[in-house]
Amino acid sequence: MADIRHRVGIAAPQARVYETLTTTEGLSRWWTRDVDGDPNPGGILRFFFGAPEPGATMEVVDLTPSRHVGWRCVGGPDEWVGTNLTFDLKPSEEETVLLFTHADWREPVEFMHHCSTKWACFLLGLKAWLEGGEATPYPGDMIISGWG
Amino acid sequence: MADIRHRVGIAAPQARVYETLTTTEGLSRWWTRDVDGDPNPGGILRFFFGAPEPGATMEVVDLTPSRHVGWRCVGGPDEWVGTNLTFDLKPSEEETVLLFTHADWREPVEFMHHCSTKWACFLLGLKAWLEGGEATPYPGDMIISGWG
Repeated sequence: MADIRHRVGIAAPQARVYETLTTTEGLSRWWTRDVDGDPNPGGILRFFFGAPEPGATMEVVDLTPSRHVGWRCVGGPDEWVGTNLTFDLKPSEEETVLLFTHADWREPVEFMHHCSTKWACFLLGLKAWLEGGEATPYPGDMIISGWG
Repeated sequence: MADIRHRVGIAAPQARVYETLTTTEGLSRWWTRDVDGDPNPGGILRFFFGAPEPGATMEVVDLTPSRHVGWRCVGGPDEWVGTNLTFDLKPSEEETVLLFTHADWREPVEFMHHCSTKWACFLLGLKAWLEGGEATPYPGDMIISGWG
């Protein structure tokens, strides 16, 4: 198994960061503008990337208010299905630290390398947006290669 | 063991990308402006981040012209010593694909999460610079948290 990991510090209250991870409005601000579904535990979230079918479907596995968000990918790229995503929040000095993992890839394929770099871009966009700047959700995301 | 992985596509000739990874001049354009040493196989490269002592010291383990660069970390943060870094280049459509790994961390510590996001920033800066934009080597790098 192989895991993607990232860490950013965000100058925003922990509850505010949590809100962007647990509401469709919040999620639409930094990953893709086109998201729907139920962000509560057991709910299904669908993320669209320009096609009629969702590019990724996540089951909300567990939530701990202001501290933890866990998703399991139940639809999307073959390599993603069955992977687990977590967002852990904690205070540190003057900021909220966000630890992200996209874990349990079956193999560290080239697409995983791509997704790692893309997640960095989206999380840095989330940080920028919560700090009063511009986020870069799809379709306004940074193109990092011919793969998008 | 745990690994950091990234992938970017760069609209520049493969040999030009390779040059930025295998000359102190090239390396100074995207990771840190303050680098010295011998970029040839068996050589030692020293990367400085504002302190008199190098923040990271790399042994150049193997080079395959225009295709592969391998370093072993022999000095720097405790968590880095003994880790292995690779840069693999290949053509793809209209670009040069760079696959990066910073492999063989003993544990997936929080600092590893931080370094993963930082590597994304540096590699995206490398891409920007080779495509005619602005790179962001230290000390002009993006600050992603209170850790730098």
